[in-house]
Amino acid sequence: MSTITLLTDFGVHDEYVGVMKGVILGVNPSARIVDITHHIDPQDILQAAYLIPSYCPYFSKGTVHIIVVDPGVGSDRAIIALEMTGQFFLAPDNGVLSLQLDSGTADSLVRIDKANFFLEPVSRTFHGRDIFAPVGAHISAGVDIQKMGTSIDIGQLVRLDIQKPRFNKRGELIGTIISIDRFGNLITNIRLNDVNQILRSQPETKLIIEIGKSRVQGISESYQGAESRNPLAIIGSRGYLEIAVNRDSAQDRLKLEKGDMVKLTSRQ
Amino acid sequence: MSTITLLTDFGVHDEYVGVMKGVILGVNPSARIVDITHHIDPQDILQAAYLIPSYCPYFSKGTVHIIVVDPGVGSDRAIIALEMTGQFFLAPDNGVLSLQLDSGTADSLVRIDKANFFLEPVSRTFHGRDIFAPVGAHISAGVDIQKMGTSIDIGQLVRLDIQKPRFNKRGELIGTIISIDRFGNLITNIRLNDVNQILRSQPETKLIIEIGKSRVQGISESYQGAESRNPLAIIGSRGYLEIAVNRDSAQDRLKLEKGDMVKLTSRQ
Amino acid sequence: MSTITLLTDFGVHDEYVGVMKGVILGVNPSARIVDITHHIDPQDILQAAYLIPSYCPYFSKGTVHIIVVDPGVGSDRAIIALEMTGQFFLAPDNGVLSLQLDSGTADSLVRIDKANFFLEPVSRTFHGRDIFAPVGAHISAGVDIQKMGTSIDIGQLVRLDIQKPRFNKRGELIGTIISIDRFGNLITNIRLNDVNQILRSQPETKLIIEIGKSRVQGISESYQGAESRNPLAIIGSRGYLEIAVNRDSAQDRLKLEKGDMVKLTSRQ
Repeated sequence: MSTITLLTDFGVHDEYVGVMKGVILGVNPSARIVDITHHIDPQDILQAAYLIPSYCPYFSKGTVHIIVVDPGVGSDRAIIALEMTGQFFLAPDNGVLSLQLDSGTADSLVRIDKANFFLEPVSRTFHGRDIFAPVGAHISAGVDIQKMGTSIDIGQLVRLDIQKPRFNKRGELIGTIISIDRFGNLITNIRLNDVNQILRSQPETKLIIEIGKSRVQGISESYQGAESRNPLAIIGSRGYLEIAVNRDSAQDRLKLEKGDMVKLTSRQ
Repeated sequence: MSTITLLTDFGVHDEYVGVMKGVILGVNPSARIVDITHHIDPQDILQAAYLIPSYCPYFSKGTVHIIVVDPGVGSDRAIIALEMTGQFFLAPDNGVLSLQLDSGTADSLVRIDKANFFLEPVSRTFHGRDIFAPVGAHISAGVDIQKMGTSIDIGQLVRLDIQKPRFNKRGELIGTIISIDRFGNLITNIRLNDVNQILRSQPETKLIIEIGKSRVQGISESYQGAESRNPLAIIGSRGYLEIAVNRDSAQDRLKLEKGDMVKLTSRQ
Repeated sequence: MSTITLLTDFGVHDEYVGVMKGVILGVNPSARIVDITHHIDPQDILQAAYLIPSYCPYFSKGTVHIIVVDPGVGSDRAIIALEMTGQFFLAPDNGVLSLQLDSGTADSLVRIDKANFFLEPVSRTFHGRDIFAPVGAHISAGVDIQKMGTSIDIGQLVRLDIQKPRFNKRGELIGTIISIDRFGNLITNIRLNDVNQILRSQPETKLIIEIGKSRVQGISESYQGAESRNPLAIIGSRGYLEIAVNRDSAQDRLKLEKGDMVKLTSRQ
């Protein structure tokens, strides 16, 4: 049995996800389908782009990751299949794979264009059903992606302009809140490496994290690392710096939102 | 492996859906269960009725579609099993299959009444668990529906009074918004056939769609068929006329709701 | 194939549940995973505790129930595996199994501490991924829980102080609304046994249920047991007394909330 994951912005109130699963099982009855989430904000390519490298490493080789966050459905945007570290990614060519591509080396990359793998007639409104589902199912059944399209170069892909943390003139690291999870943890775009870079350049100093009107000192090892109701900083499960409040919501406590700034400095 | 789909109004905050799956797997451990949605508005039979023909065609022969939108649970309303185009439908006899029945010919139809297929004791509050789940699982395991109940005639079934689009005295086609999806697309009860009827009767004319205070001309081929923020009309993935706004929500832009009117006319 | 159920407070907007499934399938590719719900209110151990005995009985022997409602993740709280009536429960030692433990006899109970069954390195923020998922998958694959930890006694476990219904001086039974389901049914902590106790002690009397400003007489057999819009009392599918309104929401009609009181008396 091979696994297919689904990441979409379809929500779960309509029949769209169920229809995709029906099509997948029609092509590959032994496929095992895992929902990652269908609650990507409608057409929010960036949100999906950040999520992909967070779940892929936990799936086996051979897994097919279908991503349908696709505001350009029905236009001439391409659909691409990527083979990377033994897994497959099927997504619109709209930049949604930008961060995944940064995380390793592509083994194979095609623009999907062989209509014999599609569900005919192909609509111009629901490629999830008509292209992504059947093509993903064929990949999971062992069809070589090279047989389903035309090889392209990684340089030809649409890439998002991913805002990375940057150092300002005073040597402070400026990052951004990129996501807030269900617990109200504020997930930034700052990685452990970035933090270490500060600490290595200025040993014997203490890390200060400024976020909104709050100031946190040092990185905690766990959510219990601060007094109740006080914010703490922690390297979260995605590998990014998060601001959290033990047994409470940092989002509610600090009144911060996606896009808000976080500043890292060091003090002796 | 045979597939069972679930369509309910149970939501996903309670344990109800999980319990049904436990019962299904107890009867047929090799059943593969696909959630269509559990977010039908509580007890909204009409909403479910419209959805059923939208997903069934994408599942294989032998699939068992369980539908539990059942305000009459515990009363003497019947539970029926329908065989149609090689698939099975298990639902309360409350009209929820009305549109599905219109879409083809019933091959077999029974009122489920053989209690040996039920989970005993049968409660009067949760037939999803006590009747639908075990009976559906037995059907998916190959039990003939004729052995699980009494044959009835299709004319005996409860039918919904489905509001179809109608032509008024001026020859304008009056339809209704029957559903709004997650993207804010306004899905009407007007089908492509209805549209073609207008165009055929008055060739050399242009189709005008009036909805709320807006007016759209012609049917677009894709969501890119109109200027940004302007509404467009499109035949959506369910085969119904939809009003959409490219990369935006038509619901938010046009301030319209389920039940609002749409009018189709033609102008030279 | 063996079944693993998941009960968490992770929600479904983030990748957390999908990641757990990836890890499970990596360890036991033939595991069948059933979501109970991921919408437990964040860190609400009591809510989860009430739910567990409601779904477990409907799953087969050998099922592994993973419960991750775990505000103490990263602290020194234990993770325990319990074998009971042929099923397995994997949960943090925070009282979430309190009601399940009351419902029967533990056959085996261990504190999980064998790190060779964990996903290394174990984070201090996401034990669902690093411990619960792989350990649960190993249990479902047949590994003896005794090999995964150290036997402990049931008396060593953290227990919640579960508020049970109590009789006041006037012999009235005082209970509480512990949960409200999607239909607006108000689920109390009063069981059929409690009701029978009142009726047995005072035969020839009628049961009166007072809740908010409303008063209901007797227990209905089904949701149709009262006039439209009038509240009724019923023994719900979980075995608890519920207050419902036929084809409507008791929560909306009666303006009541979780924690509100319900009083049972008998009158001649």
